Amino acid sequence: MIRELTRLLDELSDYSEGTDPGVTRLLYTDAWLDAQRYLAGQMAEAGLETRFDAVGNLYGRLPGTEPGAKVILTGSHIDTVRSGGKYDGAYGVVAGVAALMYLKRMYGAPKRPLEVVSFCEEEGSRFPLAYWGSGNVTGVYDWRHVGDMVDEDGVSLREAMLRSGFGKEELGECRRSDLAAYVELHIEQGMVLEHMQKRIGIVETIVGQRRYAVTLEGTANHAGTTPMTMRQDAAAGAAECIVRLEALASQWGEPLVATVGKIEAQPNTPNVIAGSVDFTLDIRHADEWKLNAFSELALSEIERIALRRRLKHRMTPWLSTKPVPMNQALARGAERICQQLILPYRRMVSGAGHDAQLLAAACPAAMVFVPSRGGISHSPSEYTDPAMLADGVAMLVSMLYELAYEEQLS
Amino acid sequence: MIRELTRLLDELSDYSEGTDPGVTRLLYTDAWLDAQRYLAGQMAEAGLETRFDAVGNLYGRLPGTEPGAKVILTGSHIDTVRSGGKYDGAYGVVAGVAALMYLKRMYGAPKRPLEVVSFCEEEGSRFPLAYWGSGNVTGVYDWRHVGDMVDEDGVSLREAMLRSGFGKEELGECRRSDLAAYVELHIEQGMVLEHMQKRIGIVETIVGQRRYAVTLEGTANHAGTTPMTMRQDAAAGAAECIVRLEALASQWGEPLVATVGKIEAQPNTPNVIAGSVDFTLDIRHADEWKLNAFSELALSEIERIALRRRLKHRMTPWLSTKPVPMNQALARGAERICQQLILPYRRMVSGAGHDAQLLAAACPAAMVFVPSRGGISHSPSEYTDPAMLADGVAMLVSMLYELAYEEQLS
Repeated sequence: MIRELTRLLDELSDYSEGTDPGVTRLLYTDAWLDAQRYLAGQMAEAGLETRFDAVGNLYGRLPGTEPGAKVILTGSHIDTVRSGGKYDGAYGVVAGVAALMYLKRMYGAPKRPLEVVSFCEEEGSRFPLAYWGSGNVTGVYDWRHVGDMVDEDGVSLREAMLRSGFGKEELGECRRSDLAAYVELHIEQGMVLEHMQKRIGIVETIVGQRRYAVTLEGTANHAGTTPMTMRQDAAAGAAECIVRLEALASQWGEPLVATVGKIEAQPNTPNVIAGSVDFTLDIRHADEWKLNAFSELALSEIERIALRRRLKHRMTPWLSTKPVPMNQALARGAERICQQLILPYRRMVSGAGHDAQLLAAACPAAMVFVPSRGGISHSPSEYTDPAMLADGVAMLVSMLYELAYEEQLS
Repeated sequence: MIRELTRLLDELSDYSEGTDPGVTRLLYTDAWLDAQRYLAGQMAEAGLETRFDAVGNLYGRLPGTEPGAKVILTGSHIDTVRSGGKYDGAYGVVAGVAALMYLKRMYGAPKRPLEVVSFCEEEGSRFPLAYWGSGNVTGVYDWRHVGDMVDEDGVSLREAMLRSGFGKEELGECRRSDLAAYVELHIEQGMVLEHMQKRIGIVETIVGQRRYAVTLEGTANHAGTTPMTMRQDAAAGAAECIVRLEALASQWGEPLVATVGKIEAQPNTPNVIAGSVDFTLDIRHADEWKLNAFSELALSEIERIALRRRLKHRMTPWLSTKPVPMNQALARGAERICQQLILPYRRMVSGAGHDAQLLAAACPAAMVFVPSRGGISHSPSEYTDPAMLADGVAMLVSMLYELAYEEQLS
């Protein structure tokens, strides 16, 4: 099964735009369309019934024997960031295909229908939206009301969708109300499992996020002629905020994270005191109350520092998502399977967003992680050891078997 | 005299390149050449003997009666930064012309020759060098060995100089060994005088400078999936350095200043922990030993912070100048004149560089400041109240009278 899995992963990674290093597969591009078609071919060869829905989500189905039973769905997304790796998203899709092939061969038809999905889009790399695939399945988006958003070349989402052959009523409804459970296998995209020497991560919650744009305004002045006591130095003010936010986040402890990743100083000249600094603040936590409380604390600390330093401050929220808990019964099941398979595991939060957080609104959802070497993702050097990829597929096979053949979680 | 001064300042400010706000007069441009010619005309009208030297420094001379007496020189520079103000440099030149006109009218010929100079370049705005005017006078530069430096359009300094009609032996020697004293009047370009409610600043020392380029390298990682304890966050590291440097500089007290004016983070993305940050460090002090000691302390603190945070660090020195003391007898003379004229004054350091620091190698040199409103300079909103401009000219007249008519400092 692992040989099959790595072959699929390798072949799939050949579908990539241009000559950038790594894998670039943006929604509705040729590389993306060829990759979905390749997967459809592989699913068909594996004996699955394949279909595309109206936005280009690809399904492979193993019909169940029990009339009217709801579907057990697994999978992930096919799109990537620019110059991404070959595991993010792709691993969950390919593992789903491999798992269904294996289950069919070993156990024949399941009681409940088993489906693997290759969602068309999750990353938000081409258009200013994310989760276009799972969002259309769960009713967060409706492709018929796509709005007028365009990519950076001015091509609209509607136009791109139509050019790829999607966006047509005859392809059938995207929205699904026939799901019994969703299981997503994914690389961790972090270094916790590697650091803790665990093989499997069982996600309890996908974190909520708050993002802010902060501006501190002081006075741009001569670096030589302005004594330290007469400065309104926006760079020093921003630096104090960053140090303070880091210290607070460390005090609060896991799973809280707070990051200042982007900093722009004006006029950004060695011999001029910074007149203004813009920086971003990204805060994540699995607990909504704590996420809100920390965000308020962070903003009030920035305000306090700005006031003390006689800097003007402006703080603009520009992203806010709530934490999404995964299904507890499914997580307990995953934990039991880890114990049976003697796989060292860790219950954890996902600090990144995933399709599972949208599916969780439609059915019980579970997420399983395998380690990412060095925690690296969204990069050509994304890597997971094949033995660890195999661990994940073993977990997925067991979970799908219990759900579709034994009808647990009924 | 003040009406004459403001007329000259206003008319001179009309000579500016393009349509940028403020004044832009870069070395050897048409605007620059027209401004020097305008000044030469005004000097001639005032009855001064005018001449250009080989690099385009303009002199206006009031001959002395005493055979072989060395020259008392005043003035400043004619060039500006892009979109600069109308006072920086120009005020010292124009005040010199006005002072010589006044002295000639009131007292006739001086014993020692009196000259006003409009140095061709001080700012370093066009070519990657500064003090081209006073540097050629004092032997720091020699226009015959100009090297192959070019401006941002690829025009060489030699070519620009020749196009303006300079760079010719027949214009005569730049280097001067006939100077008895140099007095430079300049706007403060800082807010100390305004803040202290003083009308005159008497410069004791022009500070020395050290500039460094610092790079901290950590690991660019996912802002959501990397716990606070597993980060090598270059932005947080740089922020800690900036806060620490500011605190140390404040502890050391005046006249030390330390500035981080330029910051560049990579990849500079809101949801990615900064993998590296470059920042600049500008340190100035009037005492060379303390300048060196603080610079070493600053670098060792950056190193300590980097090591504790497991960040790689690189610190590259790229500018180093020594403090230049002004002549003490001249400064005492200026102090006495302030007392006579009942002008509130302050002995101070100059945190910015000036032509006087080059002239100090050739003869006793003095610098006198008038306040800059809000400490603003290198900006179209540079401003000094006409009454304060007049205070400066009154100081200059008294100093030049003592030096040239009474032959003090002989």
